[in-house]
Amino acid sequence: MINNALDQKILGWLAEDAPLGDITTESCIPEKTQAVARLIAKQNGVICGLGVFKRVFELLDPGIAFEVHVKDGSSVVTGFEIACLTGSARLILTGERVALNLLQHLSGVATKARELSALTAGTKARIVDTRKTTPGLRELEKYAVRTGGASNHRFSLSDGVLIKDNHIAAAGGIADAVNAARGNAPFTLKIEVECETLEQVQEALCAEADIIMLDNMPPEKMAEAVKLIAGRAITEASGNMGERDIREVAAAGVDVISVGALTHSIAALDISLKFEL
Amino acid sequence: MINNALDQKILGWLAEDAPLGDITTESCIPEKTQAVARLIAKQNGVICGLGVFKRVFELLDPGIAFEVHVKDGSSVVTGFEIACLTGSARLILTGERVALNLLQHLSGVATKARELSALTAGTKARIVDTRKTTPGLRELEKYAVRTGGASNHRFSLSDGVLIKDNHIAAAGGIADAVNAARGNAPFTLKIEVECETLEQVQEALCAEADIIMLDNMPPEKMAEAVKLIAGRAITEASGNMGERDIREVAAAGVDVISVGALTHSIAALDISLKFEL
Amino acid sequence: MINNALDQKILGWLAEDAPLGDITTESCIPEKTQAVARLIAKQNGVICGLGVFKRVFELLDPGIAFEVHVKDGSSVVTGFEIACLTGSARLILTGERVALNLLQHLSGVATKARELSALTAGTKARIVDTRKTTPGLRELEKYAVRTGGASNHRFSLSDGVLIKDNHIAAAGGIADAVNAARGNAPFTLKIEVECETLEQVQEALCAEADIIMLDNMPPEKMAEAVKLIAGRAITEASGNMGERDIREVAAAGVDVISVGALTHSIAALDISLKFEL
Amino acid sequence: MINNALDQKILGWLAEDAPLGDITTESCIPEKTQAVARLIAKQNGVICGLGVFKRVFELLDPGIAFEVHVKDGSSVVTGFEIACLTGSARLILTGERVALNLLQHLSGVATKARELSALTAGTKARIVDTRKTTPGLRELEKYAVRTGGASNHRFSLSDGVLIKDNHIAAAGGIADAVNAARGNAPFTLKIEVECETLEQVQEALCAEADIIMLDNMPPEKMAEAVKLIAGRAITEASGNMGERDIREVAAAGVDVISVGALTHSIAALDISLKFEL
Amino acid sequence: MINNALDQKILGWLAEDAPLGDITTESCIPEKTQAVARLIAKQNGVICGLGVFKRVFELLDPGIAFEVHVKDGSSVVTGFEIACLTGSARLILTGERVALNLLQHLSGVATKARELSALTAGTKARIVDTRKTTPGLRELEKYAVRTGGASNHRFSLSDGVLIKDNHIAAAGGIADAVNAARGNAPFTLKIEVECETLEQVQEALCAEADIIMLDNMPPEKMAEAVKLIAGRAITEASGNMGERDIREVAAAGVDVISVGALTHSIAALDISLKFEL
Amino acid sequence: MINNALDQKILGWLAEDAPLGDITTESCIPEKTQAVARLIAKQNGVICGLGVFKRVFELLDPGIAFEVHVKDGSSVVTGFEIACLTGSARLILTGERVALNLLQHLSGVATKARELSALTAGTKARIVDTRKTTPGLRELEKYAVRTGGASNHRFSLSDGVLIKDNHIAAAGGIADAVNAARGNAPFTLKIEVECETLEQVQEALCAEADIIMLDNMPPEKMAEAVKLIAGRAITEASGNMGERDIREVAAAGVDVISVGALTHSIAALDISLKFEL
Repeated sequence: MINNALDQKILGWLAEDAPLGDITTESCIPEKTQAVARLIAKQNGVICGLGVFKRVFELLDPGIAFEVHVKDGSSVVTGFEIACLTGSARLILTGERVALNLLQHLSGVATKARELSALTAGTKARIVDTRKTTPGLRELEKYAVRTGGASNHRFSLSDGVLIKDNHIAAAGGIADAVNAARGNAPFTLKIEVECETLEQVQEALCAEADIIMLDNMPPEKMAEAVKLIAGRAITEASGNMGERDIREVAAAGVDVISVGALTHSIAALDISLKFEL
Repeated sequence: MINNALDQKILGWLAEDAPLGDITTESCIPEKTQAVARLIAKQNGVICGLGVFKRVFELLDPGIAFEVHVKDGSSVVTGFEIACLTGSARLILTGERVALNLLQHLSGVATKARELSALTAGTKARIVDTRKTTPGLRELEKYAVRTGGASNHRFSLSDGVLIKDNHIAAAGGIADAVNAARGNAPFTLKIEVECETLEQVQEALCAEADIIMLDNMPPEKMAEAVKLIAGRAITEASGNMGERDIREVAAAGVDVISVGALTHSIAALDISLKFEL
Repeated sequence: MINNALDQKILGWLAEDAPLGDITTESCIPEKTQAVARLIAKQNGVICGLGVFKRVFELLDPGIAFEVHVKDGSSVVTGFEIACLTGSARLILTGERVALNLLQHLSGVATKARELSALTAGTKARIVDTRKTTPGLRELEKYAVRTGGASNHRFSLSDGVLIKDNHIAAAGGIADAVNAARGNAPFTLKIEVECETLEQVQEALCAEADIIMLDNMPPEKMAEAVKLIAGRAITEASGNMGERDIREVAAAGVDVISVGALTHSIAALDISLKFEL
Repeated sequence: MINNALDQKILGWLAEDAPLGDITTESCIPEKTQAVARLIAKQNGVICGLGVFKRVFELLDPGIAFEVHVKDGSSVVTGFEIACLTGSARLILTGERVALNLLQHLSGVATKARELSALTAGTKARIVDTRKTTPGLRELEKYAVRTGGASNHRFSLSDGVLIKDNHIAAAGGIADAVNAARGNAPFTLKIEVECETLEQVQEALCAEADIIMLDNMPPEKMAEAVKLIAGRAITEASGNMGERDIREVAAAGVDVISVGALTHSIAALDISLKFEL
Repeated sequence: MINNALDQKILGWLAEDAPLGDITTESCIPEKTQAVARLIAKQNGVICGLGVFKRVFELLDPGIAFEVHVKDGSSVVTGFEIACLTGSARLILTGERVALNLLQHLSGVATKARELSALTAGTKARIVDTRKTTPGLRELEKYAVRTGGASNHRFSLSDGVLIKDNHIAAAGGIADAVNAARGNAPFTLKIEVECETLEQVQEALCAEADIIMLDNMPPEKMAEAVKLIAGRAITEASGNMGERDIREVAAAGVDVISVGALTHSIAALDISLKFEL
Repeated sequence: MINNALDQKILGWLAEDAPLGDITTESCIPEKTQAVARLIAKQNGVICGLGVFKRVFELLDPGIAFEVHVKDGSSVVTGFEIACLTGSARLILTGERVALNLLQHLSGVATKARELSALTAGTKARIVDTRKTTPGLRELEKYAVRTGGASNHRFSLSDGVLIKDNHIAAAGGIADAVNAARGNAPFTLKIEVECETLEQVQEALCAEADIIMLDNMPPEKMAEAVKLIAGRAITEASGNMGERDIREVAAAGVDVISVGALTHSIAALDISLKFEL
């Protein structure tokens, strides 16, 4: 059913790009014309999204044939032929833009995930994403994050409990907020508390939070917090961190480091489709 | 009905971020709690998307009140209060992420559109977008492009005729391709031909193309093409241009310059929502 | 994706005609019964809609086999066998009415388009449709118009600019209206102005309109306008014209003649499906 | 919920006519401009569809005000002002075409229904519709039929049992077909049998059919059948009847006369919207 | 199209149970692992829903193979192997719960329908269902009722006329209500009147109601009513009847007995799926 | 957006019950007739679903007024007036059945949840639901479970990790399965392992499972397992338990007891709507 939901999205994206078909192609290219189209990297990076790329064409025409030369997660260099499509020239041209837009964007995310993950090498810290994703693309972007070697935070507001300052204020303190969440949420979800001070960290520990987010703390304070927590909860570092911050914070011993830019500020990876009619 | 289509999309994005509601907020924050939330720029840039930002909350609760201090297209500086929301704490928190993800992304596009448009000052050239948009966000991104001061190319494959190399090859030449399109497409659409050489430009002129795209030509060759065309068709410069290229090409006298990066490689503008419970 | 959108519509039409199946057929006809059904013209005319006719049955049962003896656009005479279906008696009966309703309606449109187009023989004038189409059937009806040999005006309010009296009044004159549209619409669309007097025609020429609609003018005045325009814009004649008017206006030299009745007042072409169980 | 289903359809029709808004109107007419628009009959006929006409505008803008001067089913003469709308000029223009297309079509159906019903005056015969409706408009067209004074046959294959020649052949005779249907269908539905001969009528009577369709019989044979049936079943006359046939058949004493042309071959009633900005 | 509507529902149910896939299975079970899964009755009862059970898996993976050992409507005993599936372990596990939830529920309904129908053996009375069905499952539950050997009342408010006390009060009496309905509803539907007294029964007979519901009468009064009606209308007994009541009422000669509990208070039949990896 | 998703479902259920409106009511009851309708318990139990009950009517007519005398979760006795509706007689009658079907079903679930929860009084054990819910009603049924005082297990396959025998077999042991899930799933989800023996419990503990399900063990063995686990993981008892089993298992010290019958075998609570026209 995931497949079905994704198919519906792809059909919507195709309709966005060709609500009444491709006038130019239908005018100029005979229905039976066959084409070979080669998918070429124009930049070094991590490829991600070959499944959805392929699915765009399959939904237009199950008769299009694919030779795919790498898997999602592979690093490629400029000029590398990633895949080769053979089939109806009309339909390959009609699907080209949507398929490339997706592949280039997801490969951009995966490339960034790999770059950031490299910064934590030698520590136990994992880079994780946030909910700062492109509306409509969360599942795909979270997949690209995993593909690049980073990990996922919760998928949505419905499948994770993250108690922030406003929740704490409204509930009357960390302990009350944690208890309220524990009583109401499915018992299968971990409970996370966002902390800005060591006092809050202490309170979260007393309330038996499963995860403690260290929010916008300087790296040395994060290190202190990690010591205080001493393995009694999972630690998450958060807050607009640059590359240097990531290295320091990872070295300080946190378990996960969440980075919004992993999905909200991405340059598409340059990839193009070359036709042979 | 545009509104209806947009509403359906927003509801889909909200469902993506909270398919079964916001467990944390529903556990910790009483149903009646009111909040004031201030929307603050954390970076200089052009604001775009206030309508869709507001609509996210209206769809959750028509009772949320807005004071909006600027219009789409306004430049703001770090620290500026863009708007202020008052209403149900629960629902503002539930809609916050989706609304911000949209606003930050569209403001990123508008900011870039303004920056690139500034490069053509003093020439008649207009910066235009392409179909390299984020799947599902084309209409909003094209709006952000206009908001930033740039212009739009066709919206989709269905409302413009752009004859490329493959179409020319399949139709048997530029003249044949133009005639085929003219016979088949609504007579209300202009016909554009992509040219890589001056010979092709000449052929497109003979075929009475309405728009001639100068694709991946060096600026000096574009200048030559502009002279050759001499106002008999609209000229469009295209092809991965850097800032310097844009200046040169604009100076050469082209009418429009299309730039894919305007929508495919954007950094979100940093904007946040500060709560007072 | 056109196919997908059309499929969704067909499924909706089938659901309209059999929301809970065909009670009679399911009661009386064994599941395995095979039938041959012959599609016979009961009237002379132009056939249009064989694709959608076939698709109705394919969506019910991919196993139904078709022999189609003519193409869309062919003229047939009473008694001609257009096609022959072989397959599940149950499903052919279940789809029969929807498929015939479509085929008869679209053939009615195509037949009318051919009749009207014949009136302009020997002139350069093309008959075009309007937006006076049956809600939900615009794309199919516009296809039937082309099939019958006439041409299409814009598909919708979103893919063409047609400035009418109200737009002119609100914008403050033809020149202002044209400039406003030129600044806002994608530069790939032509701009049309509706004119009722020669003064307006002159103004539209000055504003460099791409198309000038001569609305509800007597044929001799249209002839005058055509002379005045002298090829500087495309000319469109409009306004409830009878057959004689069409001949005169075409002779006067207009480029296109738009006719609402082409889609809003059509008699279905009589076609039936004869079963052999 | 009927309302909801109809709303969804209207939104789809609006999207068909303005998928990305009305470019011309948005360019030329300021957002705040108000208009008065008068709905004027340009032809004599029966008005039908004022509810859906109004709903089109309400869905675009709940602020548009209506004064409606007649009810569905009223006869109007050329020049009569049917209704008057006041509100946003932009949105009235955006909805105008869809609303008029519906109103003109449904009024065309109602006008025809009234004309045909007049032919049976002085007899007990009722004119009824068929399933030969425009795909997507069945419910509205059946409403227009009632509005014009005729009656409805079943709405779909799912809410009525009509046993035709193929069902009889497959089931092994009229008695077997009727029994099969009686055992399987909800006991709340009447069972109708299509008969082409008096022998079949006799068989249908023996099988205790609730309704007997006299299909394609000459009027005098229908009269004979009516006598044979003698009130033991409802009688329906069917088969491409002209006006004279309808009179004769009604006089012969049938209960209902079904006419496909009531919905499949209709001329739109000419109605227009005059603006005052 | 029934199939299409059902497919859409199944896809919705799968999405309800696995909106973002089956995390556990995707983590632990390799994509290529094949499984054999045996469907075993854990309780005696009537099997119903094998079609929808199978369809759940087909929509996930057309490659899953089925051996089905009984038909819907078969009685099975504890331990009986109903069917055997072979295919992708991942996808069988992903669909298992939805498929079983449906099969167990529908088999529960069919089992109850058979039990209640047995109570009327030797009489002409048929057990029928009501509109007290599970929202979203009406069509399937009505199918299960037929599968178990009972019959269906109308499917919805739109395909049957049932005049109750409120309708009678508002219309001004039984005769007026029946006439109003007869004038407005398609003439293909029978008209039923709910009666609580013999006087009402008499009135309904005078009004020529097609069906008379005897509502909440003691069995002996029902018997009296049946005599009074004397075959001039179909008789339906209604009102929270226990098993003993059903026997008595059937013996009294009513035609149908409607029972809400047939669909609103059902125990799922215990059936499980045993895997062999 | 939850509200939006629920609204869409309600509209679907209303369409299921009245696809083309309520013929009887529209025929017999004038449009303006007002009614008072009293919602009366006909059986003792826990009320649940007043929100969705009310929403059904609001979607039909925002003008219907409600006085609601109890909250979800209240126990009521036979004859108690739960709420009172005032408004359009037509629309209350049209929505009545769908609203009651939901209210009766959810109140049935809540009543059962309260009964079962009472069995664990004096222990720390909580009764939780399973995924054995009615397709389409999961969210509402899980809400009814909480309303009755029991708790929720995971909502779907996507928001919880539950490793069963097949996962263990395919992954090559408990430790491997737990590690695979930990590497792939969001780190915010707890990991549960189903165990049938104490050896498996020991393995799950070594793998640091967060939750251990004791599946189909006799109560005394469950007690042993609880001792072995000694608070290092949450313990869940599972497996077709009767009332006596629930008491024993709760006494043995497990944390949660999951019961499928809480949602799959429920008798509707008898509630009716009494009209005063």
